[in-house]
Amino acid sequence: MREASYLQPRPANFVPLTPLSFLDRTAALYPERLAIIDAERRLTWSEVRHRCLSLAAALARLGIKEGDVVSILAPNTAEMFEAHFAVAMAGAVLNTINYRLDAETVTYILEHAETRVLLLDRQCAPLAQAAMACLNEDRPVVIDLGGPGDALANSHSHANLMRENIGNFQPHTPTDEWQSLCLNYTSGTSGKPKGVLYHHRGAYLMALGTIAGWGLAGHPVYLYTVPMFHCNGWGHAWTMTALAATIVCCRHVSAKAINQAILDHGVTHFGGAPIVLGMLVEAATAEPLILPHKVKVMTAGAPPPAAILEKVETLGFDVMQVYGLTETYGHVVQSIWHEAWNGLDFAERANLKARQGVPFPMMENAAICDTLTGEPLPKDGKSMGEIVLRGNTVMKGYHKDEAATEAAFADGVFHSGDVAVQYPDGFLEIRDRIKDIIISGGENISSIEVESVLYRHPAISAVAVVARPDSKWGETPIAFVELKLGERATAEELLQFCRQHLAGFKVPKHYCFESLPKTSTGKIEKYKLRERAKAI
Amino acid sequence: MREASYLQPRPANFVPLTPLSFLDRTAALYPERLAIIDAERRLTWSEVRHRCLSLAAALARLGIKEGDVVSILAPNTAEMFEAHFAVAMAGAVLNTINYRLDAETVTYILEHAETRVLLLDRQCAPLAQAAMACLNEDRPVVIDLGGPGDALANSHSHANLMRENIGNFQPHTPTDEWQSLCLNYTSGTSGKPKGVLYHHRGAYLMALGTIAGWGLAGHPVYLYTVPMFHCNGWGHAWTMTALAATIVCCRHVSAKAINQAILDHGVTHFGGAPIVLGMLVEAATAEPLILPHKVKVMTAGAPPPAAILEKVETLGFDVMQVYGLTETYGHVVQSIWHEAWNGLDFAERANLKARQGVPFPMMENAAICDTLTGEPLPKDGKSMGEIVLRGNTVMKGYHKDEAATEAAFADGVFHSGDVAVQYPDGFLEIRDRIKDIIISGGENISSIEVESVLYRHPAISAVAVVARPDSKWGETPIAFVELKLGERATAEELLQFCRQHLAGFKVPKHYCFESLPKTSTGKIEKYKLRERAKAI
Repeated sequence: MREASYLQPRPANFVPLTPLSFLDRTAALYPERLAIIDAERRLTWSEVRHRCLSLAAALARLGIKEGDVVSILAPNTAEMFEAHFAVAMAGAVLNTINYRLDAETVTYILEHAETRVLLLDRQCAPLAQAAMACLNEDRPVVIDLGGPGDALANSHSHANLMRENIGNFQPHTPTDEWQSLCLNYTSGTSGKPKGVLYHHRGAYLMALGTIAGWGLAGHPVYLYTVPMFHCNGWGHAWTMTALAATIVCCRHVSAKAINQAILDHGVTHFGGAPIVLGMLVEAATAEPLILPHKVKVMTAGAPPPAAILEKVETLGFDVMQVYGLTETYGHVVQSIWHEAWNGLDFAERANLKARQGVPFPMMENAAICDTLTGEPLPKDGKSMGEIVLRGNTVMKGYHKDEAATEAAFADGVFHSGDVAVQYPDGFLEIRDRIKDIIISGGENISSIEVESVLYRHPAISAVAVVARPDSKWGETPIAFVELKLGERATAEELLQFCRQHLAGFKVPKHYCFESLPKTSTGKIEKYKLRERAKAI
Repeated sequence: MREASYLQPRPANFVPLTPLSFLDRTAALYPERLAIIDAERRLTWSEVRHRCLSLAAALARLGIKEGDVVSILAPNTAEMFEAHFAVAMAGAVLNTINYRLDAETVTYILEHAETRVLLLDRQCAPLAQAAMACLNEDRPVVIDLGGPGDALANSHSHANLMRENIGNFQPHTPTDEWQSLCLNYTSGTSGKPKGVLYHHRGAYLMALGTIAGWGLAGHPVYLYTVPMFHCNGWGHAWTMTALAATIVCCRHVSAKAINQAILDHGVTHFGGAPIVLGMLVEAATAEPLILPHKVKVMTAGAPPPAAILEKVETLGFDVMQVYGLTETYGHVVQSIWHEAWNGLDFAERANLKARQGVPFPMMENAAICDTLTGEPLPKDGKSMGEIVLRGNTVMKGYHKDEAATEAAFADGVFHSGDVAVQYPDGFLEIRDRIKDIIISGGENISSIEVESVLYRHPAISAVAVVARPDSKWGETPIAFVELKLGERATAEELLQFCRQHLAGFKVPKHYCFESLPKTSTGKIEKYKLRERAKAI
């Protein structure tokens, strides 16, 4: 069959994939449906689209053109949600910034992204002011989104901009689905953050793939606990719009806020790091919680302890663990559940749930490969290798960083930098970050495995295990330990404890009792500990 | 932001969309899960993928190359389902042929499609033999799929082919998502059938869009009542594979078969024309039916009578009406439900359900336009115009028919040939096929509206209303009527009946009592009646 030219794509049968389509459809079909609950505010889908259009028109009036970057510093408010559409409707690229970063890093991001306009919640105004004071280049135009505190001087009022007539403004739609939609900076634990570029196609497929993979049906009531500055809140701003869901915004995440939102608004779904699950379990210990209905939870960010998973399920939460990175628009691997496992006991089920899982429907492949040779490794549940990914929700690349992009895409796959084993059933289970792996006498030791043993010691509140150079073994593990207030433990006790629970070569020989260095977002800076270890 | 060349698509982050991805993922993640129930046979997803691979390898051995056409004449069997993947895995284009067609039309299709291989269920062997006897060109290679009856002489045994070693055969994956996947011939009521081309991208998006739009979650048990020769069974072969569903094959559709499959296999979903709903209602009148669980039904093909919708819902079926054409991969418009309507009485709800609806999530737009000028028409529930569609699940075009393709895509939209009104809430309600509309004194008369009134007359078993040339009014409606066995009615009675229920200008002046001409698939041939009407 030869292909005639009249069979090529045309506007009637080829529409570049974009999440903007979801908002247009939902606003047209469900105009009066409740879209956003943000504190006392209630917005319908018709209102949300109109507000997005008004902001897009305002951005255009401020000179924003196709491909410009619009940054936002804000918690999970209606305005943060709307920015996910409004900025694209102006043809621009949305750059959500983590407001827990230090000012210096925010300065770096604003400069590197060449931000033209900064959308700013007043809660983040002090940070923005400090960051902008150090800018070498022109300061971006600031739009004050309101919120607690004072507006920055010389900022435009969002509220006023929204009241202006949009005139004959026509919202942008991409002519190329590969067009950049978002620019998200990684929060690496070392080095400068890298700017990850998303395209319209990926965001569209992320939404439809998540609906299929998570089994989302009807109109969820989604509590937005995951910060939208992390991978655009795992893409749920677009996913939930496709479903005409109701989004419950959340400025501050706490067990009380979550439980209250479930009772007040009938929340059916939310997402959160394992620490959020821990908060729920702890709160339920203090005050018993009776859920009015099953609530589905997507958890990611770090492998949740099996014990927490078990307890939170007992409370009535249906938890699905997922795995992903900023470079993959968020979750791309999911811990699917086989009905045959229902008969297993709780501990076995928790162990199965603790595995990160298998590819979401929109992903093509997730495998492991040798960290040195790049060769594929067997699915034997033992061989440890780097997780490599392939699919339509992998980033375009790093903004202004060709070298890092080529390194990440070596051998035709995306290199996650995470080390895992893969079981015969295809499930990945994360063992470590590549750079945190300790290689002792030719054996790979997962720092996470050793840490998880030490975390079970009752005196320990925080622990980090890193490699220490060793003339005989190459490297050996060393543990840096923070004790709980009022607790005591000696190095000898911890050594014995580890010997009981770990193979000999995995047991740290050295234990240092000191406070752990952390980033402004609370991640332990292991690279600093590795430096420390050389001197011990 | 300027786009650097290193940010262009590469294999790690751009994978052409294809439904083949769904089978790979489902077979890898759910190898032991029940995929197909076909009479006494049970196949797991691992087995299904292996069988698809084996057939693809066999097609390659038979000389099938990329872009060749493989046709199939079969009811809804495991082999028919598997052909939806195996043919694409050989790089070929699948052409499902309606086995209710006459031999002459099948000959035309085989010649027009330049079929290289014909997959043939023995149930369809007599038709295939008759069709091939008239072929001017080389006969296709026939693969005998088994089934009731005798195999054609000189056919290859599918069972034997499947037993051969696949050697180093590597399944095809498209390098271009626009590559042709299927070639489906329309069953028009006049003229030669047209060959509609689907691409891989469209089939992929049809599946994900259907999951989001129909709210499919978990693993449905899908009863395949819709013939796969109609728009590839509305694309559900791909959709259900994406969900690792269980597919229950169905050689002969009857109320008994459906009810039995629900009881025996826990069927949760099926699709069917309104006539299938009618069968269920009739069967339940004879023998009360108690459904063990809610069953979701997608119905399409003709507007179902509100009374049937009402009754079938009472039985426990949750019916969603959809609308689409062969040219749109099947359903692209869906009758969504607003919770606010739950409080309405049954008749009002049935009327709302009888409207065809609004675009599915994968579609961009569905509107109506003036049939003469192409101008958009208002959503007032009164203006009648042609349904025009735009989106990624609209065909590439008609095979070897540039003129028809250009006509269908005039003005940058796909012209459906169906006439509808559109309500202020965006819902379309079909009134007629364009060519069946009667224009009397400048007023559009929907033949369907007049027919639906006459269908309520107790003596009438079938009716068709067409235009009759009229010197004063241009056209006037004329009714051709079949009476029920033993019933009587006069033209005068029917005229009075119509006057009671219709505006004066819509009332047919003439009534002809005679049997209606029908195609081999049971569609009334109105073009023959229009010829008859000229002579009356």
